[in-house]
Amino acid sequence: MTIAIVGTGLVGLGWAIVFARAGMPVRLHDRNPEQLKDAPNRIRQSLRDLAEYGLIQESPEEILARCSCHEELAEALEGVGYVQESVLERIDVKQDLYKEMESSLAPHTIVGSSSSGIPASAFTQDISFRSRCLIAHPVNPPYLAPIVELVPASWTSADTMEVVHQLMHRVGQHPIRVNREVEGFVLNRLQGVLLREAWALYEEGYCSLEDIDATISKGLGLRWSFMGPFETIDLNAPGGIRDYAQRLGDLYFSITKERASPQPWSDELISKVEHERRQRLPATKLIERSKWRDRRMMALAAHKHQQEDRE
Amino acid sequence: MTIAIVGTGLVGLGWAIVFARAGMPVRLHDRNPEQLKDAPNRIRQSLRDLAEYGLIQESPEEILARCSCHEELAEALEGVGYVQESVLERIDVKQDLYKEMESSLAPHTIVGSSSSGIPASAFTQDISFRSRCLIAHPVNPPYLAPIVELVPASWTSADTMEVVHQLMHRVGQHPIRVNREVEGFVLNRLQGVLLREAWALYEEGYCSLEDIDATISKGLGLRWSFMGPFETIDLNAPGGIRDYAQRLGDLYFSITKERASPQPWSDELISKVEHERRQRLPATKLIERSKWRDRRMMALAAHKHQQEDRE
Repeated sequence: MTIAIVGTGLVGLGWAIVFARAGMPVRLHDRNPEQLKDAPNRIRQSLRDLAEYGLIQESPEEILARCSCHEELAEALEGVGYVQESVLERIDVKQDLYKEMESSLAPHTIVGSSSSGIPASAFTQDISFRSRCLIAHPVNPPYLAPIVELVPASWTSADTMEVVHQLMHRVGQHPIRVNREVEGFVLNRLQGVLLREAWALYEEGYCSLEDIDATISKGLGLRWSFMGPFETIDLNAPGGIRDYAQRLGDLYFSITKERASPQPWSDELISKVEHERRQRLPATKLIERSKWRDRRMMALAAHKHQQEDRE
Repeated sequence: MTIAIVGTGLVGLGWAIVFARAGMPVRLHDRNPEQLKDAPNRIRQSLRDLAEYGLIQESPEEILARCSCHEELAEALEGVGYVQESVLERIDVKQDLYKEMESSLAPHTIVGSSSSGIPASAFTQDISFRSRCLIAHPVNPPYLAPIVELVPASWTSADTMEVVHQLMHRVGQHPIRVNREVEGFVLNRLQGVLLREAWALYEEGYCSLEDIDATISKGLGLRWSFMGPFETIDLNAPGGIRDYAQRLGDLYFSITKERASPQPWSDELISKVEHERRQRLPATKLIERSKWRDRRMMALAAHKHQQEDRE
């Protein structure tokens, strides 16, 4: 199947690697010709990093050779089976693009959007091919974090969900089905509630940012890197998840009741949090630390592959 | 420093390994003589597992040789520097034990409780050595998950916090300071809010348990296994954490507002969740799967040590 990637920012290029790594021809398009021109170099750099960690089976050049750049949208879309739309996270930008795609898409082509928050219903309502549109929301970068949230609009066909589910499996991702639209989808809802509690504990003076971070990175996050929260608690009481829920349900209910009047993050709180983070990591070092994160993500991906191969 | 472990269940033995691995003499006591008698065998088995993953520097027997069993509480406590209390999670049981310890503790001995939910104020109020008591709450097993939450009661001395903080660092754990008592401390509050959202998304039919688990184990949990939630978002927007908060603060506030009327987990919901989990993992396989989890935890610990040594 030929794939088109529309939008060659960080997310779009991440997707290009996913599909090309799986052996598929990938056509890249961006409305900004400079950004498009630079895409192959940026893909090559990421592929070299992956090669270093043993995360690709072919050479970077072999994989890159499957990618082509197209300044004309119509040319990029011609006859492709699937489009991964990864343009700016703004309703008007997406609406304009989907209108523009109408004239070029083949009658079977499916379009998945990388949108992390805007639901498909917000930009596909008046589109003729809306039954073939859905959200396919990745974690960055998708070639290291396999999760993809598939979220249909009410008019997305069951067949569209099924085809994209299979496609994502085929290219080595881990698709999940969100059955209908919900604000923030699943992943960011889970992140959002944890973040709000973390910010509140800091605001109320219970704990430093660094110590809150450690409860996850040296504690909870260890198990969560290879099993989810339900499986974790199912294995955390002798009688399984019912036993666990009976032991801890009251405590957790009590905690959430205390937070029944959530407050937005005030500017003052944001400034305080930012100040503490910048003490720890100056703004000039954000990029360097992001590269450290990427290396750790690659090493972790290699570690997980190794573990899963053993099982 | 000599350490006493009071209570030789899973948590107590985990602590015995932490201290003995760090070179300290460890005295074990349990009011149940059968359980106490069995302790060395169980410690040996865990040490052998650790040896297999390269997680101990000495042989299991060398480490085990530092542990001694004592049927008399007074004998176990005599002249020790620190007691890690790990008895049953029940206020009356802890109250009785602390009363009993009063007559045997040296005037400098500090007592940390492994309590995962009951605060120190609930069982140390009338105890003569209450200024030397605090919570030292681990994640299981402590020899693989380094986090330890130190939580003082209002009467815990600053010196007690400081000494235990240093002790935990010295034995290779990662202590954090919770500045005053709060229900569930920090770790279980973060887990609790995430679990409640996860259960609600399942209850409302948005997603299967398995797919919710995957959003963590194939997505969010990857970064969280080596950096916390604050550092994650600080690196997840070009302008750092302020930039991130400004982009996503409204979404997260909106999500928590929707959950302003939290419901307890009903029996019906617990049954449904349990049913889905037991389809996936029969009750007869819980123990086998827990062993799988322990192996994965050991492999992950080895992987993290390797990464940190490189940096």
